[in-house]
Amino acid sequence: MGKMNILIAPDSFKDCLSAREVASALSRGILKIYPDADCTLVPMADGGEGTVESVIDATGGKLIKLKVKDPLMREVSSFYGITGDGQTAVIEMAAASGIELLSNDERDPWITSTFGTGQLIRDALNRGVKKIMLGIGGSATNDCGAGMAEALGVTFSGKFGAMAVQGGGALGEVEGIHTEGLDPRLAGTEIVVACDVNNPLTGPQGASAVYGPQKGADEALVEKLDRNLLHFADLIATQLEREVKEVAGAGAAGGLGAGLMAFLDARLVRGFDMIAGVVELDKLIRKADLVITGEGKMDGQTRFGKTPFGVAQMARKLGKPVIGVAGTLDEDASVLYELGFDLLMPIQEKPVDLEYSLKNGEELLERCGERMARLLRLEI
Amino acid sequence: MGKMNILIAPDSFKDCLSAREVASALSRGILKIYPDADCTLVPMADGGEGTVESVIDATGGKLIKLKVKDPLMREVSSFYGITGDGQTAVIEMAAASGIELLSNDERDPWITSTFGTGQLIRDALNRGVKKIMLGIGGSATNDCGAGMAEALGVTFSGKFGAMAVQGGGALGEVEGIHTEGLDPRLAGTEIVVACDVNNPLTGPQGASAVYGPQKGADEALVEKLDRNLLHFADLIATQLEREVKEVAGAGAAGGLGAGLMAFLDARLVRGFDMIAGVVELDKLIRKADLVITGEGKMDGQTRFGKTPFGVAQMARKLGKPVIGVAGTLDEDASVLYELGFDLLMPIQEKPVDLEYSLKNGEELLERCGERMARLLRLEI
Repeated sequence: MGKMNILIAPDSFKDCLSAREVASALSRGILKIYPDADCTLVPMADGGEGTVESVIDATGGKLIKLKVKDPLMREVSSFYGITGDGQTAVIEMAAASGIELLSNDERDPWITSTFGTGQLIRDALNRGVKKIMLGIGGSATNDCGAGMAEALGVTFSGKFGAMAVQGGGALGEVEGIHTEGLDPRLAGTEIVVACDVNNPLTGPQGASAVYGPQKGADEALVEKLDRNLLHFADLIATQLEREVKEVAGAGAAGGLGAGLMAFLDARLVRGFDMIAGVVELDKLIRKADLVITGEGKMDGQTRFGKTPFGVAQMARKLGKPVIGVAGTLDEDASVLYELGFDLLMPIQEKPVDLEYSLKNGEELLERCGERMARLLRLEI
Repeated sequence: MGKMNILIAPDSFKDCLSAREVASALSRGILKIYPDADCTLVPMADGGEGTVESVIDATGGKLIKLKVKDPLMREVSSFYGITGDGQTAVIEMAAASGIELLSNDERDPWITSTFGTGQLIRDALNRGVKKIMLGIGGSATNDCGAGMAEALGVTFSGKFGAMAVQGGGALGEVEGIHTEGLDPRLAGTEIVVACDVNNPLTGPQGASAVYGPQKGADEALVEKLDRNLLHFADLIATQLEREVKEVAGAGAAGGLGAGLMAFLDARLVRGFDMIAGVVELDKLIRKADLVITGEGKMDGQTRFGKTPFGVAQMARKLGKPVIGVAGTLDEDASVLYELGFDLLMPIQEKPVDLEYSLKNGEELLERCGERMARLLRLEI
């Protein structure tokens, strides 16, 4: 066998290792057996946590650190990424407006705002990017992106004139939406949003009903929040002439999905497609002799839009063998053999509890990489 | 790749599956991916439990069932095997004189006898075999093989004339050993004993001191048993002119090792070598493209004479790739990579407890077989 070109494009192993750490451990194991192998590490993500890191890694980009407003309008240290060519910004909304920034007591979608996310977008515009990619998982908000819009120049008015909109509660007071002040650079900027949920903005499958409770809303508040989103969507429809309420994904991130479509003309795509696009995964797969992906747990559900499945489908389409590595391989994972995977490889080496496995993930992955390389090396 | 010839020669997975079941499960997984593969199943053993089954399986032999005396001289259903060519008998002494035949209360090396083992040997002689192979693990006895010798025609005398010797207690009374009545067919029969321990007959590393306690002897009894063995060995030395006391393995199976050497001119060999010889493992490996072995647990200790290590060494000597499959692969098992194994393959698929693993061993092995075949199939 000549010099092997191996593409290692895993998701993170949740509660254990980042996608970058997973890829790195696997490659160490492989290189023990094939010191000459050409391992290309492409930590993947699905638009959630780790997305910025993945894109920076894959494109040789850089991390931008800055202070913005958190969901309660306090100053917080945040970040986003810019790709190696300087053309594209990658933003995780959770880095400014995420629920992890709040204590349990502070969680209250009535007053939490996406303003900080808008600030990240504005900073990216200041740096001259032509494209902005947004991952919108893990939000603390239910404001339909009104805060984000304000940070970018949109203004709102109510019964008593101009008003600030902080949170899903204030949406109910809005009577006018004014986009004249919207940052004009947005018109020349492509906005792509990673969105793997299909929720409409309102109703029983909407943002408030489905995600409100985990953001701190009780039943009564969910009802009020939902009514406010409906009211705000009607204003968007009449004043901006945009029908976003029923669009799949409008209800993502407390309606930020709808707001991004309404105010920034954003396009919602599958998280995997967004990442695959920016890292040019198809080109990398074409160059590879073998593709390795994986995530902490692989089972029958893996086929529904998760990262390893996306990698596997693309690899199969391009005629390349693909291995899925997992910490937990459930019995029903074998269905994946019919859907693109040539091999599913668990990292476990003996009966252990989950804690042991999480703690030793790095060594287990490294030895799993070694094991695969050893088997590949067998000349039979 | 052409049609593959795969030799599957595992040990049993203790408390889980017999060697035959292990080999069979692995081959099922392989055949799912390579329906045309030529899988040769050779369940291995080390002279202990499963030895008869292994040899019968590997040689197309047959199982002989018969009733003999158990360690307390009660009738018990026992068995041994005869190879496909009818030339060799394979006996597990534990099938007649094993500790598992007794309840905890009944264990008493002062009175337990190897008589039944002698009966198995005599039955094999009746069937005209030219060679007898004995596995001597798991004994309940400490009689230096005196019972076995009696069953084959040796007689003993004491202060009051002819006496029966039942157990390690009676050895102290013996004054004369008479071999005139020894079955004459033994002279033309090769006796090979699988023995993986090096204990001498007596002393602190001897049969009584090391193995007496687990057979039911307390400290005082151990001392008496040891004294009796020493006395009996002296008689063997003076009357039979055989020095067996210090020979490595003389202390195996309560001195049955010494007795077999003294009365039957037996040769002690490593368990693996005995089995490998009768199944002609070297010939099978020469025909194979790949050798798979394994056992329930593989770790740094595996290198000390256990079955998978023996298989791996032979395979490496013959230039064939060898994989070791295990339910538990300990961290220090990686030393085995330097000692013959090309790959160590654990069967676990996720964090589980030992109970789960034992209960699901068959499915786990089958899927492990499938996994190896899938990786082999990758064309890279």
